[in-house]
Amino acid sequence: MAGAEGIYGDLELSYPESDRLPYVLVNMVGSVDGRSSVGGKASGIGSRADREAMRALRSRVDAVMVGAGTLRAEKLNLGLDDPDARQPLAVVVAGEGDVPITERLVGLQRRVIVAAPEGSRRTPGSDGVPGAPLTVLETPRSGDGRADLRWLLGVLKSQHAVDRLLVEGGPTLNRSLIDEGLAQEVFLTISPKLLLGPESSILSGNQGGDQDEPPAEPRDLKLLSVHSAGDELFLRYRLRRHP
Amino acid sequence: MAGAEGIYGDLELSYPESDRLPYVLVNMVGSVDGRSSVGGKASGIGSRADREAMRALRSRVDAVMVGAGTLRAEKLNLGLDDPDARQPLAVVVAGEGDVPITERLVGLQRRVIVAAPEGSRRTPGSDGVPGAPLTVLETPRSGDGRADLRWLLGVLKSQHAVDRLLVEGGPTLNRSLIDEGLAQEVFLTISPKLLLGPESSILSGNQGGDQDEPPAEPRDLKLLSVHSAGDELFLRYRLRRHP
Repeated sequence: MAGAEGIYGDLELSYPESDRLPYVLVNMVGSVDGRSSVGGKASGIGSRADREAMRALRSRVDAVMVGAGTLRAEKLNLGLDDPDARQPLAVVVAGEGDVPITERLVGLQRRVIVAAPEGSRRTPGSDGVPGAPLTVLETPRSGDGRADLRWLLGVLKSQHAVDRLLVEGGPTLNRSLIDEGLAQEVFLTISPKLLLGPESSILSGNQGGDQDEPPAEPRDLKLLSVHSAGDELFLRYRLRRHP
Repeated sequence: MAGAEGIYGDLELSYPESDRLPYVLVNMVGSVDGRSSVGGKASGIGSRADREAMRALRSRVDAVMVGAGTLRAEKLNLGLDDPDARQPLAVVVAGEGDVPITERLVGLQRRVIVAAPEGSRRTPGSDGVPGAPLTVLETPRSGDGRADLRWLLGVLKSQHAVDRLLVEGGPTLNRSLIDEGLAQEVFLTISPKLLLGPESSILSGNQGGDQDEPPAEPRDLKLLSVHSAGDELFLRYRLRRHP
């Protein structure tokens, strides 16, 4: 087990396996009892080591993606702290609700891409962020009416040179990408807590088993690495292919 | 990180800290996304290494406890395979439902203790298990009408010499013991899977946020050890005292 120094500092990522889609890493933080948030905010869980690991992952990718709900929950910086670093693109996947880019996206960004299903309510707050050009992508709708993620990933690759994509939640977006077979790796930080409450699970946005959600096939994982920092654990898994 | 051989084979447990209560270990198995069961059965998750780790834990304790719901879900052997070993007591915590001891409890047992709240429906299937004396304990009811666990643990210690108790679920019993401050350690096996379904969380029996459940205080943990076997992880945590 590697120690606290430089978690993911020497991370080597595979080359993209597809000519048409990015290589997708899903990064999550959860408690020992598999819960994802404190009062709806994931930032209450992770430590400084977790934030450092997150920034190491971001430095390896071309774009960082979150769902609009995650942005609505708290202020986010999807970039790197180093002003000389090549910033990843910031991609926000919207549904029907607000996308408060201007209010909630902070820090340095090279470009902000908002993807929303065609015909959805126009996104207020989309004046963008100072110094970062804004691109709005109207996506086709998938079967459940949400943004077609496969289409979106294809456009990110073909039009925005995104070979590697880091997804940072929320739980619904993470799960959709995994369900649709679009994610290749899962990074999980286990915070040394039992949250115990009715907080949502790390891989679904509902507070307890949305009965409308179609049942998903369980997926097998290969454990790639284990790091620790203090009482916190950093796990890296590869998703095995569907049988 | 220790390897596959002898997970918990050299485990050293603390001495009981209380004259009146056993030292309580909670053992759980969950998926990477914090879910506890496949089709209601925990046995679908754990591997052979997990079962070996479980038996190593059992060999260190005086009694093994499960909730009756866990017994109703599948056949269970709460003992050790070695016929010459000193078998732990088997303790089943009942509610209002059936306690199918005779049908579901298999293997070697030194003694079976069924604890049910006073006035609850008489437990059918309680003819016991061949070769294992049966004790039925009527417990006081706690505030929510369930068996008073603090009372039960006290009786196990004072009348049955239980200094160390291993609790193996289900999620509701595990959580109750933690909520009430009766558990000292948590052992978590992380199965290399994403279950993704509406399966219950590893620390509450409901399929998604029982709104009647009182909110619990989050608890902080200290990471004591990390073992791995193949893609499976074995984590041991100490519950920190309430602040």
